[in-house]
Amino acid sequence: MNKVIDFQVDASKYRHWRVEYDGPVANLIMDVDEAGGLFEGYELKLNSYDLGVDIELNDIVQRMRFEHPEVKVVVMQSGKDKVFCAGANIRMLGSASHSHKVNFCKFTNETRNAYEAAEKESGQKYIAAIKGSCAGGGYELALACNHIMLTNDSASAVGLPEVPLLAVLPGTGGLTRVTDKRKVRRDLADVFCSIEEGVKGKRAKDWRLVDEVIPNSTFDRTVRERALEFAEIIRKSNDAKGIALGPLSRAISENGAFYEFVEVEIDRDGRRATITLKGPDEDAPDSMEELHGQGDQAYILKLCRELEDAILHLRLNEMEIGLWIFKSHGDPKKIIAHEALIHNSDHWLANEVRHYWKRTLKRIDVTSRSLAAFVENGSCFAGILAEILFAVDRTYMMEGEFEGDNRPEASVALTDANFGLYPMGNDLSRLNARFLGEPEMIGRARERAGESLEAEEAEELGLVTMILDDIDWEDEVRIFMEERSSFSPDAMTGMEANLRFAGPETMETRIFGRLTAWQNWIFNRPNAVGKDGALRRYGTGMRGDYNMERV
Amino acid sequence: MNKVIDFQVDASKYRHWRVEYDGPVANLIMDVDEAGGLFEGYELKLNSYDLGVDIELNDIVQRMRFEHPEVKVVVMQSGKDKVFCAGANIRMLGSASHSHKVNFCKFTNETRNAYEAAEKESGQKYIAAIKGSCAGGGYELALACNHIMLTNDSASAVGLPEVPLLAVLPGTGGLTRVTDKRKVRRDLADVFCSIEEGVKGKRAKDWRLVDEVIPNSTFDRTVRERALEFAEIIRKSNDAKGIALGPLSRAISENGAFYEFVEVEIDRDGRRATITLKGPDEDAPDSMEELHGQGDQAYILKLCRELEDAILHLRLNEMEIGLWIFKSHGDPKKIIAHEALIHNSDHWLANEVRHYWKRTLKRIDVTSRSLAAFVENGSCFAGILAEILFAVDRTYMMEGEFEGDNRPEASVALTDANFGLYPMGNDLSRLNARFLGEPEMIGRARERAGESLEAEEAEELGLVTMILDDIDWEDEVRIFMEERSSFSPDAMTGMEANLRFAGPETMETRIFGRLTAWQNWIFNRPNAVGKDGALRRYGTGMRGDYNMERV
Repeated sequence: MNKVIDFQVDASKYRHWRVEYDGPVANLIMDVDEAGGLFEGYELKLNSYDLGVDIELNDIVQRMRFEHPEVKVVVMQSGKDKVFCAGANIRMLGSASHSHKVNFCKFTNETRNAYEAAEKESGQKYIAAIKGSCAGGGYELALACNHIMLTNDSASAVGLPEVPLLAVLPGTGGLTRVTDKRKVRRDLADVFCSIEEGVKGKRAKDWRLVDEVIPNSTFDRTVRERALEFAEIIRKSNDAKGIALGPLSRAISENGAFYEFVEVEIDRDGRRATITLKGPDEDAPDSMEELHGQGDQAYILKLCRELEDAILHLRLNEMEIGLWIFKSHGDPKKIIAHEALIHNSDHWLANEVRHYWKRTLKRIDVTSRSLAAFVENGSCFAGILAEILFAVDRTYMMEGEFEGDNRPEASVALTDANFGLYPMGNDLSRLNARFLGEPEMIGRARERAGESLEAEEAEELGLVTMILDDIDWEDEVRIFMEERSSFSPDAMTGMEANLRFAGPETMETRIFGRLTAWQNWIFNRPNAVGKDGALRRYGTGMRGDYNMERV
Repeated sequence: MNKVIDFQVDASKYRHWRVEYDGPVANLIMDVDEAGGLFEGYELKLNSYDLGVDIELNDIVQRMRFEHPEVKVVVMQSGKDKVFCAGANIRMLGSASHSHKVNFCKFTNETRNAYEAAEKESGQKYIAAIKGSCAGGGYELALACNHIMLTNDSASAVGLPEVPLLAVLPGTGGLTRVTDKRKVRRDLADVFCSIEEGVKGKRAKDWRLVDEVIPNSTFDRTVRERALEFAEIIRKSNDAKGIALGPLSRAISENGAFYEFVEVEIDRDGRRATITLKGPDEDAPDSMEELHGQGDQAYILKLCRELEDAILHLRLNEMEIGLWIFKSHGDPKKIIAHEALIHNSDHWLANEVRHYWKRTLKRIDVTSRSLAAFVENGSCFAGILAEILFAVDRTYMMEGEFEGDNRPEASVALTDANFGLYPMGNDLSRLNARFLGEPEMIGRARERAGESLEAEEAEELGLVTMILDDIDWEDEVRIFMEERSSFSPDAMTGMEANLRFAGPETMETRIFGRLTAWQNWIFNRPNAVGKDGALRRYGTGMRGDYNMERV
């Protein structure tokens, strides 16, 4: 096993960021440790970043919501003179494998989406306060903030120099946020994305690239004022008391990853992982106050944290495991009781846990692996967990009695969780996306909410792909798994990226679907990554040597 | 120069299709000549197709609208026993260059879009009548029809076997039409796209893959009945008299392509083409009846035909010419008079010419070349031609007097053409897409419609990217052209594909933007096109040898 990338971190271990809490305002300072790269072979100069830097940022964004609900405004800024952030580290990109690059971009995209949505979801608005050069991934960090302030001096500029300099696209949503969020005029966007030196001062504002340009002499003061103004406007309770997110207890090995409620078992020969989610042992807390008291030990929160960590671990550390099978076991009624608490409360923590589940389910949606769920006897795919059945590519369900199996017969139960509480990136519920062609099926499913649906009913309601009895089950699921693992991973990735997102598109799906696909293509072309390509030659003083054929 | 692919064809030269006209119904019979491949090295067995087959289909669809306006229903069917169509020829795909594959798919996609829209735009509804196996690109031919009928016998099935068989995606919109047009449930779509043998009979209907499944014994009769039923419903004048589309007069050479109103000059060292559109010499006809009498000699139609042919020629035959510069010269008032005729009439031919311009302008939008327009003195970027200014990536405009230049000063004029008559694939007008961030600019532009806008006004209205006077013009446009031609073509393609389509997505933009990008990526991966990849190994009895890493 190669070095395992660990997504668990906490403030005591940060090497690249620090946060200064000041009442409703948090100052988030990027000060990357040059020597702190995740891998050998590059230095993180000029606040450039690699996956390790982004793992810390992701942790901060998450803790901000759970540990510091009092924060209303987060001011992202640089701890270095003369540079805000130089973007993703080019040497790292030049030496990384295609699969690492792509998964790195996916994770950073998810982190950008998380803090971009924090204003709407959690009343935490991110401001970018830019002094110094802010280029490529650096400007993308700013673009995902909901207010961009730029100081007006000769050195401070925003830019996306990837195309002219590196022959690749900005990898974390830059182009899409320029056109769709900032709504920059397309010809100006074309100019902006073609110049190495970026745009500064009044022109940056005129072109809609930033929200404010401020004289250098009053910049710090104005940023502070603006932060307090925004904090004033954001309406939320001021006396929410955060909960600490302690370390997860887990064991990661060659065989899988083992948590309290999540077990990942890896079958290397079969190139598949089985992810088993366990239902709660205990009854649900009586109230949100009791759940708040349990803090990070609350089942519904802990399960989500473990599942998220397992997803990220498998994505980045187990690239050859191309098929994930979701299973569950436990008491569906207990799951429903636990989730009901967070569905029926306006407690800030209920809100945060819901949004956290939403983000985690969305991580499943955009995972480039073939995904299936097996609804077996004794399973507990109810409510939030049933949502996994609609996130995966296919679902197989046991039907009727199985010899020698005395677990409760397989069932599925729907709750409010399945009717809009956990939308996909395209803003549709997974059932809405599933039944685009037969919207009347939503109503039929809704009528049966709360019931324990056995195989025939689940199939008839369109909730599962296939039901199989004792005679067929073993052979059919084995054939499916073997076949799926034998297909070209690239074709599966492309197929799944298209089939999973029918219907409307949003900025988010455009970033994962359109932009990422083009970027992946370019990341694979000799003009970028070949031995004479621009990424490899960066820093040598030579430009890339390009095949000039257009495709 | 390699063999030049010619997009001009007519019925007398068809080798692969024939059309039997029968009043309001046309029978469109695919009967591919095995020996009629566009290139050496493959036989077009089992009604498989290459670009040459699709060039004929495109011609038929176009002539159906202009030469046979009386047709209301087109029944697409096979002239062979046992097979409807086996899809794109695999040996052709296996041996073609990446750039040819991608441009081939783009053209076939445009053809599919054209006949798919013919029902709404021209009252010509395409039915697919499927007997025999209908796989891959064959099913994609059917998917773009607006009614799919499948006979119920053991040999007739629809399928998309690309992923399991060839390790690539269906290349002409298959996945997107399955999810977004047919609205097949995503897990069933996943099953459907993973099986080699396709789906037949009742299941094909249950899964929404076809509209009707009909017993073999009554199939032909039912198809005929259905065609007549549809023809009955479609309301349009029955006495429209078509016009013949004669051959274009043109000269294609190493130096460019020269038509009556379009001149393409190629600068190979500069890797750019200059496309000059000439205004009309004659005054506009007095009425649509007069224009109808002119037939294919009418300026506004001929200009469009020439421009379309030039675009297709450059795309497929001049891959290294990465920058297209649009210029024009002529009298803007005359252009406006010619287009006014087709904008202000409900004559069927006015309708057809408008839709033809719409399709041609959309071809520009999706062209993978850097596009610019130079608005020079003496130019006539007015109305439809001004639309080109908003389709390209950037526009440079001459400002003020130029020494020794006595042509009329550069101007732009807007007409109805620019406010919704020619929507992009995303259903927005180009000005709407341009001003997503400043919608008030649309109103300001509208107020000035009909005026001759000089440089300062055009810039102030946001209609051009940059205005340059006599001192700067030459240097600036030269630097732009040199710089643009030096960038990596792949990065430009990806950048342009993202920046050109801000805002909403439609099935069409999803096909060109999301699906195509994934397909391009896969078309570039060793698992598909490497020496042991599935495309290369097809027909050898060996499966592709895959790198199993997921990215």
